[in-house]
Amino acid sequence: MVNPFFKNNGPFKFSEILNLLNLKSDQFDNDTNVIDIKDLQNAKSEEITFFHSKKYNIAANNTKASFCITNENLKNELPKECTPVIVGNVLASTSIITAKFYPESIHDNFDTTVYDISKTEFNNKVKYGKNVLIGQNVSIGLNCLIGHNTIIEKNVSIGNNCIIGSNTIIRNCLIRNNVRILDNCVIGKHGFGFFPAQNKNLRYPHMGIVIIEDDCEIGSGSTIDRGSMSNTIIGKNTYLDNQIHIAHNVRIGENSIIAGQVGIAGSTIIGKNVKIGGQAGISGHLKIGNNVEIAGGSGVIKDIPDNLKVMGYPAKNIREFLKENR
Amino acid sequence: MVNPFFKNNGPFKFSEILNLLNLKSDQFDNDTNVIDIKDLQNAKSEEITFFHSKKYNIAANNTKASFCITNENLKNELPKECTPVIVGNVLASTSIITAKFYPESIHDNFDTTVYDISKTEFNNKVKYGKNVLIGQNVSIGLNCLIGHNTIIEKNVSIGNNCIIGSNTIIRNCLIRNNVRILDNCVIGKHGFGFFPAQNKNLRYPHMGIVIIEDDCEIGSGSTIDRGSMSNTIIGKNTYLDNQIHIAHNVRIGENSIIAGQVGIAGSTIIGKNVKIGGQAGISGHLKIGNNVEIAGGSGVIKDIPDNLKVMGYPAKNIREFLKENR
Amino acid sequence: MVNPFFKNNGPFKFSEILNLLNLKSDQFDNDTNVIDIKDLQNAKSEEITFFHSKKYNIAANNTKASFCITNENLKNELPKECTPVIVGNVLASTSIITAKFYPESIHDNFDTTVYDISKTEFNNKVKYGKNVLIGQNVSIGLNCLIGHNTIIEKNVSIGNNCIIGSNTIIRNCLIRNNVRILDNCVIGKHGFGFFPAQNKNLRYPHMGIVIIEDDCEIGSGSTIDRGSMSNTIIGKNTYLDNQIHIAHNVRIGENSIIAGQVGIAGSTIIGKNVKIGGQAGISGHLKIGNNVEIAGGSGVIKDIPDNLKVMGYPAKNIREFLKENR
Repeated sequence: MVNPFFKNNGPFKFSEILNLLNLKSDQFDNDTNVIDIKDLQNAKSEEITFFHSKKYNIAANNTKASFCITNENLKNELPKECTPVIVGNVLASTSIITAKFYPESIHDNFDTTVYDISKTEFNNKVKYGKNVLIGQNVSIGLNCLIGHNTIIEKNVSIGNNCIIGSNTIIRNCLIRNNVRILDNCVIGKHGFGFFPAQNKNLRYPHMGIVIIEDDCEIGSGSTIDRGSMSNTIIGKNTYLDNQIHIAHNVRIGENSIIAGQVGIAGSTIIGKNVKIGGQAGISGHLKIGNNVEIAGGSGVIKDIPDNLKVMGYPAKNIREFLKENR
Repeated sequence: MVNPFFKNNGPFKFSEILNLLNLKSDQFDNDTNVIDIKDLQNAKSEEITFFHSKKYNIAANNTKASFCITNENLKNELPKECTPVIVGNVLASTSIITAKFYPESIHDNFDTTVYDISKTEFNNKVKYGKNVLIGQNVSIGLNCLIGHNTIIEKNVSIGNNCIIGSNTIIRNCLIRNNVRILDNCVIGKHGFGFFPAQNKNLRYPHMGIVIIEDDCEIGSGSTIDRGSMSNTIIGKNTYLDNQIHIAHNVRIGENSIIAGQVGIAGSTIIGKNVKIGGQAGISGHLKIGNNVEIAGGSGVIKDIPDNLKVMGYPAKNIREFLKENR
Repeated sequence: MVNPFFKNNGPFKFSEILNLLNLKSDQFDNDTNVIDIKDLQNAKSEEITFFHSKKYNIAANNTKASFCITNENLKNELPKECTPVIVGNVLASTSIITAKFYPESIHDNFDTTVYDISKTEFNNKVKYGKNVLIGQNVSIGLNCLIGHNTIIEKNVSIGNNCIIGSNTIIRNCLIRNNVRILDNCVIGKHGFGFFPAQNKNLRYPHMGIVIIEDDCEIGSGSTIDRGSMSNTIIGKNTYLDNQIHIAHNVRIGENSIIAGQVGIAGSTIIGKNVKIGGQAGISGHLKIGNNVEIAGGSGVIKDIPDNLKVMGYPAKNIREFLKENR
């Protein structure tokens, strides 16, 4: 699938990629084209991938990629058909190569393609407020409302019967049907992902997008960051209250309810029918099961299996917590 | 009193109301008019109310309503003059009937009645920034300032000597005198109240408003939701810092001080002279006494009597907390 | 140095100052001019300062100020050349006198000097979105981008290669080079500092500014308040995630990383290379050392020495916390 949000500037010669990483090129066939960069599962022949942790051994064993940025210790896990590119810091090198393919995925410059909605095809199709700006190639379904001062940036797609509030900014986002996004939200900016470096951090590319499924509501002042390589997804009929922060790559299942000021850190996966009380925080890279209830103010730092109710910091079984804190 | 924000679309025939709830109508006098829907205390003759929990037995015993949505177990608490309407889920049924009377209280569509302030009666009365939008029937007192890009929606009333910041949205709100509301706030949107349902939650009507008394200050990026049946009230000379969330039906007493990023959940009542430290969270439906001090970061999950200082999660007497956490 | 943001309305006769504080003037030489008000270290001859706590004895012993607002118990710490002005409440009186010298430092009225950027000298120098407003005497370096609906208020200075998002408000702020400030931020408003008083709090002046050093990134929906007498400073190459609140007078060292929804209360000093996890809160007037790591959700209520990792509420050594919470 072509990603409509971030254009692939490739292909590049393999020699160009090696040069960017300051690698010697004697042992490689430099004239080969490299078409794209993807993760281990999704990369195909003539594409490059990256492999930085044993956790991904199985995916590495089975990758279809022709090239893989990795290190000495991991390279033997790759299939013979995959040429390892050995570097010191896999993720930093991956960042450099990804930025080469997808330069627009690094920063979030304002959309220069926008026009006042009254000068676009949506003038008679959408009910809109004052000073609404619409970028190139936006699509908006039937029976939608867009509030004052709101900015819908290029390529965003909005389904039918959606209500977008005022002063809201939406970019790099697919919005399904019957979705309500309230005022002062920022949806689809890059995540807080970068490689720390003295004097000048190195921003990690974010080529993923935000997908908001049918019937969701997103409260005022909320921020939902787009994914880095995968997408940030809000499941069907999930409601978010005000001032919530959803970081990059987070996926939330359907029918979930998340109260005000909750924060969910990067790459955490939340199940279906989950209830999260106000101000709770959930660390990154966790898996929260279905039907889980997390009490307000809790701090979740490990996975939670299905059907559990938790409370506290660190969050534990709610009965245990309340017994200890009578 | 006529609510200037949410127009009552009634009266409706009692039979219409029964039909909406899929109830048989043999036993009722269907032609009676039902004029309005209110809570147990405020409902009068020819009006309908609702009664869903034993907690409200006394109010139910004394209601003046002619009709009451309730269930089999509770109906005997009602006076003889009040006809019970027996349903499976009292609150969901109440929501349906309230939405019938007050259809505009369900969603917060942007105000289509706004004009640029320069084209309104306030052009020479108010000092205002660029791109200020004012809805129909707004009133603004003497000596007020309104910052750039701010939206004052229909029927909002602002007193004398008020200062409203930039990029702020105010709706369904009465603002008294000498109030300052800083930038990027959203005041008066509906609360996070709805009946969860698989595939399609049912939004609860919010006919209440926000009242901000004299001499208050509301910090940047704050959200104050309007009430459902009652109002959300910020007491005289109470100051809120930045990024605070005040949920629907909350009432805060006068001379209180609330630091940054605090969240107060729905229907909690806060006394006078209360101090709340940064990032503290207070659960819903609690009663916090006068002169209470809540340390920053605390999580309050039960009522607090007057004059107590608390800290921790769950919050307890601050001396006890500090002794245990030396 | 002349403060370009807050104009000194002085000098004032000493008798005027005494009158404002309702003090008798028999014992004073009333015709002397008082040129400015500063803190103990920075005040010079013919200027007034204030001294309210023994903590500042050494600074008081060495002040060069000609006048000092203080109380009976502290006055003997001042040099003979410094005339004490004895009052009941030192900080409240200081507030009144500061407001006399710097009346614009009390409130944050919207900037009435702004023009649409297309009508300013920046029309051909800056790449900008729709509806961008620029105040008087703003300076903007080479190669900058400013997003839609953003307001840069008077006297703000922005360096080279800076990217400012959309819907953001910047006032009383110096921004160095290569800085990125994302959408919906409010930078440079006054802090949450005032003297509580029944019926009418007394706002404390904020004459400090915000300084954002080279290579910083400030996430969406963040608020950074300016200082009262000193400045709020974000050190070089420090990154802030979304929805962060930085209170007045806070200083953060270089190369620090602060995750989403963190709050730092007034006058706290954070070292270099500090990492703060999401939703952590740090009380005011603390000193956090270099290379400190604060786990997400922690509540820090005392100083932390260099190189320590902490977690919990109140935050303690992370190993201890995790052992106790297995």
